[in-house]
Amino acid sequence: MTEFETIDGQLAVGGVPVERLAERVGSTPFFAYDRALLTARVGLLRAAMPADLQLSYAIKANPMPAVVQHMSGLVDSLDVASALEMRTALDTPTPPARVSFAGPGKTDTELRQAVAAGVTIELESENEAVRIARTGAALGVRPRVAVRVNPDFSVKGSGMRMGGGPQQFGVDAEKVPALLKTLAGTDLDVLGFHCFAGSQNLRAEIIQEAQQRTVELLLRLASEAHAPVRYLNLGGGFGIPYTSKDRPLNLTAIGENLAGLLRDEVRPRLPEARVVIELGRFLVGEAGVYVTRVIDRKESRGRTYLVVDGGLHHQLAASGNFGQVIRRNYPIAVANRIDAEPAEPVTVVGCLCTPLDLLGDEVTLPGADVGDLVVLYQAGAYGLTASPTAFLSHPAPAEVLL
Amino acid sequence: MTEFETIDGQLAVGGVPVERLAERVGSTPFFAYDRALLTARVGLLRAAMPADLQLSYAIKANPMPAVVQHMSGLVDSLDVASALEMRTALDTPTPPARVSFAGPGKTDTELRQAVAAGVTIELESENEAVRIARTGAALGVRPRVAVRVNPDFSVKGSGMRMGGGPQQFGVDAEKVPALLKTLAGTDLDVLGFHCFAGSQNLRAEIIQEAQQRTVELLLRLASEAHAPVRYLNLGGGFGIPYTSKDRPLNLTAIGENLAGLLRDEVRPRLPEARVVIELGRFLVGEAGVYVTRVIDRKESRGRTYLVVDGGLHHQLAASGNFGQVIRRNYPIAVANRIDAEPAEPVTVVGCLCTPLDLLGDEVTLPGADVGDLVVLYQAGAYGLTASPTAFLSHPAPAEVLL
Repeated sequence: MTEFETIDGQLAVGGVPVERLAERVGSTPFFAYDRALLTARVGLLRAAMPADLQLSYAIKANPMPAVVQHMSGLVDSLDVASALEMRTALDTPTPPARVSFAGPGKTDTELRQAVAAGVTIELESENEAVRIARTGAALGVRPRVAVRVNPDFSVKGSGMRMGGGPQQFGVDAEKVPALLKTLAGTDLDVLGFHCFAGSQNLRAEIIQEAQQRTVELLLRLASEAHAPVRYLNLGGGFGIPYTSKDRPLNLTAIGENLAGLLRDEVRPRLPEARVVIELGRFLVGEAGVYVTRVIDRKESRGRTYLVVDGGLHHQLAASGNFGQVIRRNYPIAVANRIDAEPAEPVTVVGCLCTPLDLLGDEVTLPGADVGDLVVLYQAGAYGLTASPTAFLSHPAPAEVLL
Repeated sequence: MTEFETIDGQLAVGGVPVERLAERVGSTPFFAYDRALLTARVGLLRAAMPADLQLSYAIKANPMPAVVQHMSGLVDSLDVASALEMRTALDTPTPPARVSFAGPGKTDTELRQAVAAGVTIELESENEAVRIARTGAALGVRPRVAVRVNPDFSVKGSGMRMGGGPQQFGVDAEKVPALLKTLAGTDLDVLGFHCFAGSQNLRAEIIQEAQQRTVELLLRLASEAHAPVRYLNLGGGFGIPYTSKDRPLNLTAIGENLAGLLRDEVRPRLPEARVVIELGRFLVGEAGVYVTRVIDRKESRGRTYLVVDGGLHHQLAASGNFGQVIRRNYPIAVANRIDAEPAEPVTVVGCLCTPLDLLGDEVTLPGADVGDLVVLYQAGAYGLTASPTAFLSHPAPAEVLL
């Protein structure tokens, strides 16, 4: 939240103060992403991680084509979750083999496009293996796959648990050796393994434990492989702080742990494997803001309301309605008077005709009125695409990258 | 759920069995709405309500243009919440004066369109009154408004509470007399009042109490009006059952109560007022289904998963992630074998790469496999438009009205 520059008392994105930016965009609300902050973020991560660890950007976090183009120049590979995301990734200079395609419900059409493109398909089930092999034969192309493994452990403390116990994701670890044997009889190029234990985790010690157990599991499975293992995707799960209860992740601890794992465990046994961590939210989430204009200021029975022209249709998670049990305020400010002292408690609500549309519940802000610009931070990931944009049929907000 | 016809062992919408319907649509997943069920629903409601009560359809519940056209022929008026919804409503034969526009954050652009169109603007604040009057003067058109009142009571047991205490909606009841005095000095045509206490309520006695208190409040305010009161919008809030814990609303009790209120309270004092209830979900919610195809069937550690090509990006509420505290299964079935006996517990998940994408948690269904069609009921309202359709960039589903 403090990473954005202030110019003349205004929040600035990419060097442009927010009032001028709103004029340039031509309409509010809008999302603005900061190119320099994206670059700095990847730099920060690279500095903390071992040199031979590769970074993959999960473009689901922010699939805006300009953002993906920029990220393509910073990371080693791109991860996609649908045909459209794949097209966006293939439009970058990242080579197709460095694009991975994950997801438990890939359609035949998607698989056909993926095989034709030559991307690495994260294979999620026995049935999918059959369908991929059939597609490869039909196209005369040898499909590249990595086996997504549902681990035999689970990680606590994640925003979402995605491995351990029964899961729709991947193949249960204990079934992988039999699958590898089957795959050896097909014309699939089995590159290696993928394991994703959870997401949005802010506790380094839990991520470290997950990575250690993931490495142990994947090395055990690698010993059953029928071809050289050239790819180990250790997943991601690095969280970002959203509320005053959250603390940023300790990257140094994670990097040191990973360096030890690579040096002592992976490299002696798989010297040439491309070892990857796959991150979305962590790379882009803090580099974006959502800017919306105050349309009305009203008092109701002792409360002051700022009604803005945005709302949960663009920022569902910030309203506390996307899978959250307890609603907490995301960081919020008056963008065109960013240095002004907090002066009064206000409730910031969106323009929608529903009480769910709450963006700031009794937050203390400088006195703001009609025409002012309110900013929600941490809006670079899972903002526009993770919100019900058609709810009440309002126009789509613009997205800009500066 | 039982209102849909069965033909040759398949769910049918508008007389078309679901497998043929999927071919006609050309892709899965899709939403299908049943014209005859919409008509029957309005008929059921009319039969239970007093003859001089008018019905308004809140098109936010389902703004598909074909649905709105059909509803226009069945109800007395349409309620909209955005400029695009207003355009959809104005494209029907419903006259502009019978279109109401509500929402706490209407922009100047929206107000200009609304005044030019001659719709009835539900006035939500003192500031909005000034803006509407200014717009009317600029256009040389006398704006039609109704004052939206934030009641001095609240209704318990609603899915969402929208009145009582401090609110972003409307003008606090105790401030309305002063506002009416101010409005009398402007060139606004003040038609009457609107009050909406809550939504998605399944308890008739609570709705009855809310309607009684709303009538009392609005009649009290009507006595302060400076012009004849020609419009009383009593709100809506009629719920529909979504889970096995829900029971359908007792319409008869509500209708009898309203008949008494109109006869004994409203008509003696406002003989010519148009008295309206405004319903969205209740009119369309049960007339729609969401149909999605099984892409994979997999076992993981004792659980059977059906992975379908739809998911929470189209049916967020059914996944339990749109503001719900406790997730409960929405009604679900195997649409192409609707009469088959339930045979096994399965977990139905969507195609998205997130554990949130859960459509049926250990539901008992007939044995289903790849290619079968799974249906989610109660999908006629707040389905497509209340879901994050761009999440993971999958194609938008089709919507059809039969």
